[in-house]
Amino acid sequence: MDTQTVTLHGHIIDSLILAKVLDTIVMLGGTFTLSEVTIGSKREDLSHSTIHIKAPTIELLQDILTAIQPHGAVVQAEQDCMVTPSPADGILPENFYATSHLATQIRWKGKWIDVSHPEMDLTIVVKTTPLSAHMIPMGSVKLGDLIVTGREGIRVFPLERPIERDVFGFMETQVSSERPHRHIIADVAKRMKNIRQHRQEDNASAKVLFAGGPAIIHAGGREALTWIIEEGYIHVLFCGNALAAHDMEASLYGTSLGYNLGIGRSVPHGHEHHLRTINRVRALGSIAKAVESGVIKEGIMAACIRQEVQMVLAGTIRDDGPLPDVITDAIEAQEVMRTVIPGVELALLVASTLHAVATGNLLPASTPTVCVDINPAVPTKLSDRGSFQAVGLVMDSSSFLRELARELGWKG
Amino acid sequence: MDTQTVTLHGHIIDSLILAKVLDTIVMLGGTFTLSEVTIGSKREDLSHSTIHIKAPTIELLQDILTAIQPHGAVVQAEQDCMVTPSPADGILPENFYATSHLATQIRWKGKWIDVSHPEMDLTIVVKTTPLSAHMIPMGSVKLGDLIVTGREGIRVFPLERPIERDVFGFMETQVSSERPHRHIIADVAKRMKNIRQHRQEDNASAKVLFAGGPAIIHAGGREALTWIIEEGYIHVLFCGNALAAHDMEASLYGTSLGYNLGIGRSVPHGHEHHLRTINRVRALGSIAKAVESGVIKEGIMAACIRQEVQMVLAGTIRDDGPLPDVITDAIEAQEVMRTVIPGVELALLVASTLHAVATGNLLPASTPTVCVDINPAVPTKLSDRGSFQAVGLVMDSSSFLRELARELGWKG
Amino acid sequence: MDTQTVTLHGHIIDSLILAKVLDTIVMLGGTFTLSEVTIGSKREDLSHSTIHIKAPTIELLQDILTAIQPHGAVVQAEQDCMVTPSPADGILPENFYATSHLATQIRWKGKWIDVSHPEMDLTIVVKTTPLSAHMIPMGSVKLGDLIVTGREGIRVFPLERPIERDVFGFMETQVSSERPHRHIIADVAKRMKNIRQHRQEDNASAKVLFAGGPAIIHAGGREALTWIIEEGYIHVLFCGNALAAHDMEASLYGTSLGYNLGIGRSVPHGHEHHLRTINRVRALGSIAKAVESGVIKEGIMAACIRQEVQMVLAGTIRDDGPLPDVITDAIEAQEVMRTVIPGVELALLVASTLHAVATGNLLPASTPTVCVDINPAVPTKLSDRGSFQAVGLVMDSSSFLRELARELGWKG
Amino acid sequence: MDTQTVTLHGHIIDSLILAKVLDTIVMLGGTFTLSEVTIGSKREDLSHSTIHIKAPTIELLQDILTAIQPHGAVVQAEQDCMVTPSPADGILPENFYATSHLATQIRWKGKWIDVSHPEMDLTIVVKTTPLSAHMIPMGSVKLGDLIVTGREGIRVFPLERPIERDVFGFMETQVSSERPHRHIIADVAKRMKNIRQHRQEDNASAKVLFAGGPAIIHAGGREALTWIIEEGYIHVLFCGNALAAHDMEASLYGTSLGYNLGIGRSVPHGHEHHLRTINRVRALGSIAKAVESGVIKEGIMAACIRQEVQMVLAGTIRDDGPLPDVITDAIEAQEVMRTVIPGVELALLVASTLHAVATGNLLPASTPTVCVDINPAVPTKLSDRGSFQAVGLVMDSSSFLRELARELGWKG
Repeated sequence: MDTQTVTLHGHIIDSLILAKVLDTIVMLGGTFTLSEVTIGSKREDLSHSTIHIKAPTIELLQDILTAIQPHGAVVQAEQDCMVTPSPADGILPENFYATSHLATQIRWKGKWIDVSHPEMDLTIVVKTTPLSAHMIPMGSVKLGDLIVTGREGIRVFPLERPIERDVFGFMETQVSSERPHRHIIADVAKRMKNIRQHRQEDNASAKVLFAGGPAIIHAGGREALTWIIEEGYIHVLFCGNALAAHDMEASLYGTSLGYNLGIGRSVPHGHEHHLRTINRVRALGSIAKAVESGVIKEGIMAACIRQEVQMVLAGTIRDDGPLPDVITDAIEAQEVMRTVIPGVELALLVASTLHAVATGNLLPASTPTVCVDINPAVPTKLSDRGSFQAVGLVMDSSSFLRELARELGWKG
Repeated sequence: MDTQTVTLHGHIIDSLILAKVLDTIVMLGGTFTLSEVTIGSKREDLSHSTIHIKAPTIELLQDILTAIQPHGAVVQAEQDCMVTPSPADGILPENFYATSHLATQIRWKGKWIDVSHPEMDLTIVVKTTPLSAHMIPMGSVKLGDLIVTGREGIRVFPLERPIERDVFGFMETQVSSERPHRHIIADVAKRMKNIRQHRQEDNASAKVLFAGGPAIIHAGGREALTWIIEEGYIHVLFCGNALAAHDMEASLYGTSLGYNLGIGRSVPHGHEHHLRTINRVRALGSIAKAVESGVIKEGIMAACIRQEVQMVLAGTIRDDGPLPDVITDAIEAQEVMRTVIPGVELALLVASTLHAVATGNLLPASTPTVCVDINPAVPTKLSDRGSFQAVGLVMDSSSFLRELARELGWKG
Repeated sequence: MDTQTVTLHGHIIDSLILAKVLDTIVMLGGTFTLSEVTIGSKREDLSHSTIHIKAPTIELLQDILTAIQPHGAVVQAEQDCMVTPSPADGILPENFYATSHLATQIRWKGKWIDVSHPEMDLTIVVKTTPLSAHMIPMGSVKLGDLIVTGREGIRVFPLERPIERDVFGFMETQVSSERPHRHIIADVAKRMKNIRQHRQEDNASAKVLFAGGPAIIHAGGREALTWIIEEGYIHVLFCGNALAAHDMEASLYGTSLGYNLGIGRSVPHGHEHHLRTINRVRALGSIAKAVESGVIKEGIMAACIRQEVQMVLAGTIRDDGPLPDVITDAIEAQEVMRTVIPGVELALLVASTLHAVATGNLLPASTPTVCVDINPAVPTKLSDRGSFQAVGLVMDSSSFLRELARELGWKG
Repeated sequence: MDTQTVTLHGHIIDSLILAKVLDTIVMLGGTFTLSEVTIGSKREDLSHSTIHIKAPTIELLQDILTAIQPHGAVVQAEQDCMVTPSPADGILPENFYATSHLATQIRWKGKWIDVSHPEMDLTIVVKTTPLSAHMIPMGSVKLGDLIVTGREGIRVFPLERPIERDVFGFMETQVSSERPHRHIIADVAKRMKNIRQHRQEDNASAKVLFAGGPAIIHAGGREALTWIIEEGYIHVLFCGNALAAHDMEASLYGTSLGYNLGIGRSVPHGHEHHLRTINRVRALGSIAKAVESGVIKEGIMAACIRQEVQMVLAGTIRDDGPLPDVITDAIEAQEVMRTVIPGVELALLVASTLHAVATGNLLPASTPTVCVDINPAVPTKLSDRGSFQAVGLVMDSSSFLRELARELGWKG
């Protein structure tokens, strides 16, 4: 029988953390006794508990410790984390630690230090001069980098229920199409107003990220989204070739994939319009030049250029062209996306499974995130991330954007 | 080798009718020659064609004739239809003719007479004094009724492309969530305005039918639908116990299935609210009394009572209570629905598979119909009816109703 | 400041019950202190806790007590339940207690007695000679019946994690189409084998309930389901007119809604087949007579008649005919469904939203239930019932039934 | 009033081609007269028609000619196509001709020549020594390349109904989940057997292409797909990093995204498995080396390596790692995919929207294609391509693959 003592500290009652830890221990086949339980009697009080875990084998005990670590359980007999040099560029040592998207610390020479930029499924590299720890992707590792291995000397901080009592402050992530959307959209709008005000008044770096797919244009959400960007509510845009191309097709031809948005009907040889649009922008050299030269007069791309929105256009194998701004290498695109994530305080993922999942992977668990899709499987996938902060809406992108714009003051 | 000569007459080019008839003949294994082909050179010109069909067996020839009859192919050697008396109440003679939802005539003593109330999957009964023919359901047949049997002496009139060039005038029924909704909703609103004006100015009996499910209340569409009814745009409502109960729950408690629509959150013991609502209305005796007595002050039911909308509430095995107005017998409910169908010139089927399909079955093919559902399978099912006049929208009911109300002038 | 003391007893750690109760108290605005906490250190040990709740108002305290009662919290100062006579047939007293689908007791003259047949959204009637308590629907209440009112003297028993460690023993109800189905289907098959064996060897009354829609026939699941019934694995069938009609259409014509299941193609005038089938069975008087007379030779209906499966066919407004066995009154159909529910130890709800939800409403929370649908919204709706025992599968009904039959030994 | 005479030739009745051309002319506002109509009386007979089109303006006449060109209407006054040199690398002349996925010819010095490799949304480049014409993507164009511009001297050949009367030979593309899958799967299996036999006996280059997503592994289809590949039924595989990584994770750890496929449950720290798998294969250098060295012993990747399947792994921004074989540049990946398309005589697109759409874009309209997805929107998107040859199946990938394997002889 092997034993280990762990401690839990924080809002462990309010967030069901203690319950989940105890449940996990017995589910995996261990037993426990509790001591030094201090349970706060109010929401804001902190609780504390010491848990003595027993398991029949050392392997099972390790499994239990691994499983409860994401809930913030810290092994009491603290020791430093282990590091192992990387054996080659882009290759990790066998026993590397795989990260979660929760705030994480490692213990180094007796002191706990923060690991920068929490993200799912990366590795931790330790830099010694000056001492720092970073989450980086496998492909960015260089020969000899000190990579954290094993599970000792690492602690993660589970998300606690946030203080703000809007939609992001509740455990139930909303993915039914049979619940009202209006409060969620109203809460999102309120957050967007706060972030914009914060930026304007305090010159803050807080950002709203929007990631979206071309259905936004096809389904009629372009006008509303353009307005939202022009008003300064969006600061980062992640999209693909198609959203940008069809937006500019609408500007040049009034169509989206050949469907005339003004008269509600496909037009003859309209399917060529996006190709002609792409060719034209290629000839001009960039979206910025197309806007600045007056060729593209309005729309999402024009608004982004004028509002200096940070745009990352990532390529896929579906692309025609592509537009000159598209980063066709997926790993390079990921890296650029990573550089603009810091500061994002609200993420809207709309009508794009690819961008929703890719962006969700890059965000820390603590970033409030809304995922909107007509297909309930997409928001479900996102809210399975296990965060208090992801909310799913099953509705079409156009209705969402028009309602959001109206909440923000649009008169359309 | 058996042969038969049929004629086709009408907009047979414009509506692909000739093509489909010839295609069907060869697909089923027959051959044909054409004679007396007169093809109109403009949309409004009628075309005419005589088709000589050959098939290796008499059975196959019969199959071909049956298959092309819904396209309006009339056997040239005309003869009267056959009738056979019904052997018992509710039982049809073996070889009864099963109807389609297209306009239909039967030939009786050398003259073609109209069959009243086209509806899918019924039978035709002939009354002799005065001479008339009616489509009726199997269950309404009485012993000795003269039932049309076989396929001779019956002709149907295929739908031609309608003259009005709005969304209902195009062959492509729209079921993708990646097409803009606004033109469709605008066209629907225009039809609703026309029908209302027509009723007001000409005292006409033209009606708009609305059939819907409780998701309308849950998802936040109640306010917009109430406004639409209050403004006199809806004249028939088909729904179930749940829509009515949750609408009145919202009036009494501000909740829908215990979810507070005002604050966007479930409330303690809120799931009891609809039961208390139903019990209260049962005690009062009817929805009308609940509204008239001032217990139910606003909402869809109140608007329907005040606007004298024809309501049919049909029961299902999911029902709690039910409300006193619910017709719990399905066949009786169907009969009542049938009595209010005549005059319906626009049907909106929203967020209810059961009501969408049941209402779709009762409507003639010529009735312009919009089916709205978040699940693409429901509009697909409806638009498979093979009519020019059914349009599907994949979106949530609340967004649809709010957009429709805005198109009609709502300021919400 | 108002206070109340409640006790919790049972597997309150393992089932997250304590955590949820404490969480609910603080979420609703109360505070608490714990005393007499005894936490079992193993899965099978019982835990106990006394919770002293404080709330600023008596109303809020009542709200908290109502909200935590479904988790098994029992007010310590026990008192008898209140009863009020029903004011009229089918009408409940204002303050009636609305039931959950959990095991429930009421306190009468100092003793706790069981309430029979737990079901959601009913009321409790007390009979005094002999003393007993029953859950009954609103519509079955008679003038003067003693109805339980208020919330005192009532306790419910929350579901604990079941001992059997198959799919029904885990908290995660499975509704993703991206999880393997095989283990779930294997576990369902194992339960079905056990129930059959139990019936055969011990003459037990344990039953498997199957509720399904006509897509089973359309999509090609008929052969497998027939085999499963013939082998004695199904004991109760809930369905509508359509499943029965298309099953017998397949027997008579080889088609389902006119689509030839043997050659994989629609056949000419095939859409009439189900009408001719219904008419023929109506003429014979019942499904049983159609089978016994040899008209219907094989299929689901034939297997059910031969295996003496308890069938309940409930009517809807979509029905053609209907078949003579269909109970067209929804409330009457519900009542008959209720009479065959006792003894059901496994429920399979396949490809029918209406039957899935209606049957789910009638079942106690403790009945292991599988909901299969191609539309993820249906299993989600079912598993929202808040039970450990409902599992959702997103797949087509035919693939499910064929895989299930193979697990049970089918060679098809 | 402008006029133009066009001719139609082929199975223009049987394929509804004549009807669609006439319909399009009147829909767009033109009128027509027919002359020299020769209609074949049997399926195999060719028909011929000369159509004189009139339109009020030259622009409208051009629109009509553009719109009917994809139906094979050839302008009678034939003239050579125009070509314009490309103004820069990767840039097309303004008026470039955008291709369809139908067989196409251009007229050059009075002779019609075939354009190689039909694909949607490309451009046509003419090479003069020796004379040839090719469809190429915009990005591959070099300065000075002769690009076909305008619409003169180009003709396309509409798809006619294919001779083989299996599922691909019918106009109705199947996207309902309420139709039986078995005949479709049986017909697909028959085609696969024919192609394999053809390759083995005649050393033919006919190929079956499989494009799929990681849900195949998650949902339990791995075993069946591995068998199908091992038996030599698949010759080209298009996938992403995830399918390959989870397949090899299953080989190394028995899990897929941490979910143990053998016991049907998530395992502790299982979400790390795919990262460790990817790291391990990166260290080895390639999937081929991982298989050849015996590290990866079985599964889809192992079968592909051993069967010498042409694999193209395309990267996306969702990717962890990625595996060393992944082509991270989207345009490069597209080019490689293009090189292996010739010879594909059957394409199976399973459980991947991205790969389904991307592959669909690359295939000629004449390639029989099956699209399988649990989400009906994906097959709908594919079958909107307007081909006789695309069939959609709404079902989960695992059930599809297991059924397909069984049809091919699998005993699993």
